[in-house]
Amino acid sequence: MRTPFIKMHGLGNDFVVLDAREMPLPALSAQMASAIADRHTGIGCDQLIVLEPSEAHAFTMRIYNSDGGEVEACGNATRAVALLHGEAATIETAGGVVLALEPSEGGATVDMGKPRFEWDAIPLDYAMDTCAMPVGWGELENPAAVNVGNPHVIFFVENADAVDLAAIGPEIEHDALFPARVNVNVASLVGPDHLKLHVWERGAGLTRACGTGACATAVAAIRRGLVGNRVTVTLPGGDLIIEWRERESIRMTGPAAESFRGEFNWDDFA
Amino acid sequence: MRTPFIKMHGLGNDFVVLDAREMPLPALSAQMASAIADRHTGIGCDQLIVLEPSEAHAFTMRIYNSDGGEVEACGNATRAVALLHGEAATIETAGGVVLALEPSEGGATVDMGKPRFEWDAIPLDYAMDTCAMPVGWGELENPAAVNVGNPHVIFFVENADAVDLAAIGPEIEHDALFPARVNVNVASLVGPDHLKLHVWERGAGLTRACGTGACATAVAAIRRGLVGNRVTVTLPGGDLIIEWRERESIRMTGPAAESFRGEFNWDDFA
Repeated sequence: MRTPFIKMHGLGNDFVVLDAREMPLPALSAQMASAIADRHTGIGCDQLIVLEPSEAHAFTMRIYNSDGGEVEACGNATRAVALLHGEAATIETAGGVVLALEPSEGGATVDMGKPRFEWDAIPLDYAMDTCAMPVGWGELENPAAVNVGNPHVIFFVENADAVDLAAIGPEIEHDALFPARVNVNVASLVGPDHLKLHVWERGAGLTRACGTGACATAVAAIRRGLVGNRVTVTLPGGDLIIEWRERESIRMTGPAAESFRGEFNWDDFA
Repeated sequence: MRTPFIKMHGLGNDFVVLDAREMPLPALSAQMASAIADRHTGIGCDQLIVLEPSEAHAFTMRIYNSDGGEVEACGNATRAVALLHGEAATIETAGGVVLALEPSEGGATVDMGKPRFEWDAIPLDYAMDTCAMPVGWGELENPAAVNVGNPHVIFFVENADAVDLAAIGPEIEHDALFPARVNVNVASLVGPDHLKLHVWERGAGLTRACGTGACATAVAAIRRGLVGNRVTVTLPGGDLIIEWRERESIRMTGPAAESFRGEFNWDDFA
């Protein structure tokens, strides 16, 4: 079966998008998602995105990491899918409903929903204040935790570039404190309302840009009073603008682009 | 300009193939080749292959590494292009003319031409015996050197898996002994007529499989009498069969496959 796909990226975080809204696709195994994501023998991507029909919303977006595991939320993919959809829409995801505003040339704004701060919503293994957690791993300590559809822990440090996140990230990701594992964010303030951020992504490792990480980090910084309600977050792949007012939902604005379109033979990867 | 391409691989060494045999393409800068090869924001590949018309042969194959630099030869790409062409053909490359035999299901045999052993054909910086060179880098010593369209140095060791080629490869690649730089091969004998091989590729680093490295290593092993005239070379990506008789050309047999086809917008990467 010749299967069309669209290759997109947001700040270098790249996606293969399969559009099953009109034409259903066969069931996708974790092994097949991983084969498609393989950068040498497959199509190659950080995440595989499958768009499916939804009863209550414009469509459903399912997100698979390159290891084949399904995940709840991906901010960069939401912007890419918003660009693809071309008009404002509510989108169903495993992490909740997200709202895509009408995209502009080369970018999109998406409403990522309300962040959650309750310890059991992160989830953490036991109760504690998620604004300033009395825990630490080496030089990284006193983090915040936020769930923005997926779980994040955020460390504010003097110089985010100086932290060896490739070394410490896996240890924190798999710490027993985080029963659903966790995305690890290391941020520093580089100017007024301007953060620099590196993210160790759960199941994906170091990436050029993590949209939900930018949301979670901006929210944690706003909560601590480090920045105002509109924050520029500089990731290795580029900048995102995050807006959040207490008790409201998070808005993320940033670039998205289509790289190319293609067709593969479903049976080659099944 | 919508530009069609074919994504292929041989043992996981992967290529974007642009077919300009019938429809000429605009000039391709190193920067553009590199943008196409980018795995996150481009199409993604180890090498970009451009097929062009040839006066004397079926077509010309030009080969660009992911850093944008043009190289002379790529054995895995030659098999992939042979599969694509679908019939026996002589192909012009910057490293010389290669002959593709009629491909079979899932693979191809290509004649890679005659190896060269003269010190100034490798090229080396000064004269020495290329069958056993009186030089060394740490534990790696007494290598052979072969030019099979591109320059190779080959070390035979007890256990190729135990050598930290990512650490020592770049140093040897850039050693002043090799004025055109060099591909670094580390091989061990794992059975009768059976070699295991790891390759540090000039301009590309560690790869899953290097076809010219397998040819050069088999030829060097045959020259030293370590193996017979038909050798299985096991690379991380899989096996190649190399045949060589003294003073004749090298034949390489192994798998090749098409991954998918697509179209990109030329101006997006220009």
